[in-house]
Amino acid sequence: MSKELRIGLIGCGFMGRTHSNAYNRLQNFFPDLKTKAVLKAACARNKDSVEAFAKQWGYESTETDWKKLIARDDIDAVDICTPNDTHAEIAIASAKAGKMILCEKPLSRTLAEGEEMVKVIEKAGVKNTVWYNYRRVPAVTLAKKIIDSGKLGKIFHYRANFLQDWTISPDVPQGGAGTWRLDVGAAGSGVTGDLLAHCIDTAMWLNGGIKDVSAMTETFIKERVHHDSRKKQKVGIDDACIFHCHFDNGSLGLFESTRYARGHKALYTLEINGEHASIRWDLHDMNRLEYFDHRDESVVRGWRSIHVTDGDQPYMDKWWVPGLIIGYEHSFIHQAADFFKSLETNKPCNPTFKDALQTQKVCEMVIESANTRSWKDTGVDW
Amino acid sequence: MSKELRIGLIGCGFMGRTHSNAYNRLQNFFPDLKTKAVLKAACARNKDSVEAFAKQWGYESTETDWKKLIARDDIDAVDICTPNDTHAEIAIASAKAGKMILCEKPLSRTLAEGEEMVKVIEKAGVKNTVWYNYRRVPAVTLAKKIIDSGKLGKIFHYRANFLQDWTISPDVPQGGAGTWRLDVGAAGSGVTGDLLAHCIDTAMWLNGGIKDVSAMTETFIKERVHHDSRKKQKVGIDDACIFHCHFDNGSLGLFESTRYARGHKALYTLEINGEHASIRWDLHDMNRLEYFDHRDESVVRGWRSIHVTDGDQPYMDKWWVPGLIIGYEHSFIHQAADFFKSLETNKPCNPTFKDALQTQKVCEMVIESANTRSWKDTGVDW
Amino acid sequence: MSKELRIGLIGCGFMGRTHSNAYNRLQNFFPDLKTKAVLKAACARNKDSVEAFAKQWGYESTETDWKKLIARDDIDAVDICTPNDTHAEIAIASAKAGKMILCEKPLSRTLAEGEEMVKVIEKAGVKNTVWYNYRRVPAVTLAKKIIDSGKLGKIFHYRANFLQDWTISPDVPQGGAGTWRLDVGAAGSGVTGDLLAHCIDTAMWLNGGIKDVSAMTETFIKERVHHDSRKKQKVGIDDACIFHCHFDNGSLGLFESTRYARGHKALYTLEINGEHASIRWDLHDMNRLEYFDHRDESVVRGWRSIHVTDGDQPYMDKWWVPGLIIGYEHSFIHQAADFFKSLETNKPCNPTFKDALQTQKVCEMVIESANTRSWKDTGVDW
Amino acid sequence: MSKELRIGLIGCGFMGRTHSNAYNRLQNFFPDLKTKAVLKAACARNKDSVEAFAKQWGYESTETDWKKLIARDDIDAVDICTPNDTHAEIAIASAKAGKMILCEKPLSRTLAEGEEMVKVIEKAGVKNTVWYNYRRVPAVTLAKKIIDSGKLGKIFHYRANFLQDWTISPDVPQGGAGTWRLDVGAAGSGVTGDLLAHCIDTAMWLNGGIKDVSAMTETFIKERVHHDSRKKQKVGIDDACIFHCHFDNGSLGLFESTRYARGHKALYTLEINGEHASIRWDLHDMNRLEYFDHRDESVVRGWRSIHVTDGDQPYMDKWWVPGLIIGYEHSFIHQAADFFKSLETNKPCNPTFKDALQTQKVCEMVIESANTRSWKDTGVDW
Repeated sequence: MSKELRIGLIGCGFMGRTHSNAYNRLQNFFPDLKTKAVLKAACARNKDSVEAFAKQWGYESTETDWKKLIARDDIDAVDICTPNDTHAEIAIASAKAGKMILCEKPLSRTLAEGEEMVKVIEKAGVKNTVWYNYRRVPAVTLAKKIIDSGKLGKIFHYRANFLQDWTISPDVPQGGAGTWRLDVGAAGSGVTGDLLAHCIDTAMWLNGGIKDVSAMTETFIKERVHHDSRKKQKVGIDDACIFHCHFDNGSLGLFESTRYARGHKALYTLEINGEHASIRWDLHDMNRLEYFDHRDESVVRGWRSIHVTDGDQPYMDKWWVPGLIIGYEHSFIHQAADFFKSLETNKPCNPTFKDALQTQKVCEMVIESANTRSWKDTGVDW
Repeated sequence: MSKELRIGLIGCGFMGRTHSNAYNRLQNFFPDLKTKAVLKAACARNKDSVEAFAKQWGYESTETDWKKLIARDDIDAVDICTPNDTHAEIAIASAKAGKMILCEKPLSRTLAEGEEMVKVIEKAGVKNTVWYNYRRVPAVTLAKKIIDSGKLGKIFHYRANFLQDWTISPDVPQGGAGTWRLDVGAAGSGVTGDLLAHCIDTAMWLNGGIKDVSAMTETFIKERVHHDSRKKQKVGIDDACIFHCHFDNGSLGLFESTRYARGHKALYTLEINGEHASIRWDLHDMNRLEYFDHRDESVVRGWRSIHVTDGDQPYMDKWWVPGLIIGYEHSFIHQAADFFKSLETNKPCNPTFKDALQTQKVCEMVIESANTRSWKDTGVDW
Repeated sequence: MSKELRIGLIGCGFMGRTHSNAYNRLQNFFPDLKTKAVLKAACARNKDSVEAFAKQWGYESTETDWKKLIARDDIDAVDICTPNDTHAEIAIASAKAGKMILCEKPLSRTLAEGEEMVKVIEKAGVKNTVWYNYRRVPAVTLAKKIIDSGKLGKIFHYRANFLQDWTISPDVPQGGAGTWRLDVGAAGSGVTGDLLAHCIDTAMWLNGGIKDVSAMTETFIKERVHHDSRKKQKVGIDDACIFHCHFDNGSLGLFESTRYARGHKALYTLEINGEHASIRWDLHDMNRLEYFDHRDESVVRGWRSIHVTDGDQPYMDKWWVPGLIIGYEHSFIHQAADFFKSLETNKPCNPTFKDALQTQKVCEMVIESANTRSWKDTGVDW
Repeated sequence: MSKELRIGLIGCGFMGRTHSNAYNRLQNFFPDLKTKAVLKAACARNKDSVEAFAKQWGYESTETDWKKLIARDDIDAVDICTPNDTHAEIAIASAKAGKMILCEKPLSRTLAEGEEMVKVIEKAGVKNTVWYNYRRVPAVTLAKKIIDSGKLGKIFHYRANFLQDWTISPDVPQGGAGTWRLDVGAAGSGVTGDLLAHCIDTAMWLNGGIKDVSAMTETFIKERVHHDSRKKQKVGIDDACIFHCHFDNGSLGLFESTRYARGHKALYTLEINGEHASIRWDLHDMNRLEYFDHRDESVVRGWRSIHVTDGDQPYMDKWWVPGLIIGYEHSFIHQAADFFKSLETNKPCNPTFKDALQTQKVCEMVIESANTRSWKDTGVDW
């Protein structure tokens, strides 16, 4: 008889959809999991919305107050999909209630919030994970395997950027559904917490800790109408952020993110250069991994474009046949599957809150570095 | 109160999985559909297999004899996912039983089979569709819209190929699960019915009827062990097929398919060249459409790489946000959604059996042309 | 003391420029050649034009009658850059005068012309070559080396196309400078002799003889103003040509050429698929060769994009440093250098007239096949 | 009667070759220039080498002491192709001798040297230019035209990198022919002066002055054998350099260069993002320019891959026909042609020494910023 994991999801926006989809796919694509996902309750402030959401995604019940959801006995795990300003409060309450926690990234708005969260979660000893979903794109997971195999040799460089162009118009408001990411109160920061956090999480997973940073940020549009006040208010977020850094292994890092790069919808690219080999990846063509190996015979040496769709490549035995790609949403399905598997193995499901806290440290020091125009040590413990 | 469409699925292989997944996604991604998919029964000859399949995909019951499934009163629609040699018999029986039919492509092994199928289905007046799923890849659907808008002007050329490399080893058997496509008895033909049929369907949908063809085929490996007899037998399928043709609109067509193109897993590409503009697409990067418009200002004119992930592009309002891709399986979800929508509008869901029969005509004449080393009129009525 | 090769060049158009440039570069980039190119005379019918040309390119003298040029004692080699309709006459006269001959491709308008040319040249025993320049693009030469090394194993497929879009407008005339290629009298054929001849030459060099062909041709614009008569006349050339074929080694060939492929300026691409490995090349990015080797470790296997700019790759030790590309014109410089080197080694400089005659056979049978809608044996002796 | 410009070239290495080639091509490809290049003398310390070089490239005479070359009356212009440590001395002496000067980049090893050079050159009033050749790659020149036309709107971002991998082996020495770029005494700096100087020159040309910088540098291999002493010595150059900056127009800049990026031979890429449009370029595929225009119709909007080979694109009327590419060396030919044309128009040939001095300011402050781990104002006057 299979066990059940009864999930209560809080927040029914974009991420609420990706997580709900992930749970719904497990039975179909990971039938060997010993634990079954049960979508017990969905929670959002608006009653009509949450009921429509619950119907669409198959939740058994709804709540409009997250505290009630957490108080329920029939919830084993809380999935936090709300804007960043409520992550800490919900996570801490969930931990104290003994619930497992799956939290959307970034962990928190600030390092202080994150530290408090980790302290409480660790004390509570509840299972936890943070949805840095890009680790589970098969091509990225494959990159991790290649790097861990030692194929690259000593690492010299790591670079990543995450470029978008959706806030160029001054008419985009701050605050409210879809645009809370422009409201510093809700989001904590701009591209740093939203986009660079992904790049930093992947980077440290692939290449180890980031030791120190030197950053610059910019807010191109200084005032925007706020959704709540309907008035123009000062914009508090960073529209763009660039930083360079040292990794613990001596390699140099270079990171950039912006929402003002016309032509790029969600261009997350990463590259790592080692003594013997290099790797590149690009979210827009996320099923491909580029790999260069200097040890190939010289006259036929070149960047290999690996179409990561074969059964011997990470996660791909679960899907279709070679040549047939998967999409963005699958990264969440893979993380959900890994979380469920971690219930069986009793191992942590990376990245844990503690792992995500390290990314928070880098983000905080990046902003601090930009504000003070100086290098900052991150204090990352990887 | 929403209506239900009770589905009985026959054949639990690769296509059984893609169709089952499609039905399962409708509620999540097309919540406005007025009819709900109910997975009533799955059917396959092996009892253990079909039960495991039913559990994995959520079918309420199982059958091991497809005739029993068709005889059931609680089945509204039959989905045929079996090898090609049973399409005709099952479809005809289903039509006679008054069931709607969703049939995997190709429609049939031979033109004669297909003609019989269409005759019976039309007489029965049952709703029907054939799973030429690539029409519903958003980039391909967008190509259709662009072409229909007249942007290309007079068409001069259409070319497509479908290249694979999975049968190069002489050790691949013919017959049996996974390799029935090499057995001419089960498949009817080789790459012509399996791969070129896709190319032909898309081509006629985009560019109109194919009038005449001149073809060549080749069977590189003449004998392979048969799964059933365990003995080496003559291979009856075409390993590769190339043909050129005239379309009704006066443009020239060029088609190629093979399973011996080392390095290509499932490279379906198409290109259409018009007087003013051209379009290209490639299944390996299926979320991109390339578009060239000669009317662009000359010094900044070039092929545009369109990342088809925006909400105003076909089907993409159902999914994520700009820049985030979908995968192969989504083409089936879209066709299932269109089929369900067609129940509301009472319009046919293309391609119907009658449409698919036209592709069958081309396939038959391609094989005939290759065998006789001569041009053949197709008799296509588009 | 170095020897001299005194060149008389006939025809001062596009090809006259590429050849003249080639001779001028030898001293700079191939300083080890023992024979020095001396630009003795340029010949064209218009006196002003040829004098301007001679000044621009450094020819010592001019002629307006090619027969006078051939009659001169101070000419060792005749370079034929005229439209196709004069190749035979000039080449035959040159051979009879004992001159070496470098002839622009295609060898001739018709097979009969070509056969006569070869007969006379062989009898005369004069050194000769035909400017199928793409063999000397370093990436293509590298492809030849890879294929000859056996890395590909048994060959299954060869495909090539040459796509242009410069004659789509009905206002392009036939005949005259720049547009003589549309005049069947001057050119002999359309895309077949102009573009497919290149594809065929490279194909047979890389993959051996073409045994039989099945072709179709089309003339999209039936009448165009003729440059000479200033009147609309029937167009006699093929605007587009497609053929498939068998190679002597059992592989299948597929060729297409057109001047109606909107968006393609001069897209010559080729691909060859073998049992173990495949190769692709594209003239638009001519310094890259794509190579796929199935023997690479499976999880990191992919098409390699080889930037052919290293000193150990063909011809590249003569140029710059890794990463810095060369252009179209360099293919002619390489052929000129190889011709000069062949004077030292006393070996033929491929492709000779006899080699080029084989391409002529294929072209002739392609046109014949299209005209008769039937397969044709080529009679190629490779 | 055409005038002559008698050139004395100092330094017969890689750059001596590219410049000599450029002069030799003018007559062939820019026949309308009113001044003719005369290769009067080549100079290098080794007599045998310089004589071979002069013969190969057509110099009328040789010198082994550059002071003698400058002293000659029959030299109008001095072309400085020596390592960086002699630029200042030669340029200053040349200016004092009233010679025009064409100097290889970077202008100098240090800002102080550069300032002295500019002071003397301006006092002497001699015509001058610095070979930042990438400005004259047609695709880059086209980028300049597009930007100057205002198509991009307000600029938000500029990024460039120049990645190589040729010094990863610790066995590469410092000093000596081919490797003087690793010797800080000869080169002044590492990748900053060698590679980033190119990126900075192009950047300021396209996007205006760089106001302040924050940089980091790294020397991965701390000791290398010196060519002169044959002993291991401390490496004084920067192996890698990263910096971010503000441009005067308010946009953010991001630059990176290294010789430790495995897989990149000479990957110079640049990208500029504006309010309405963006541009990308890559030296490895230097004939292409990528352009994105947000004003394109939304469903067919995408990055355009412009093959910059048409006659209406910069410099391309001098070369072949659409679709046929040119190479690296052509950028030098274009600059030489522009220099010769500037003799007719009596306008400066950009970049002048004064322009190049601005790049020197940025380079100096980049190194200074890295050394002091702090932001630096550049003092650039653009």
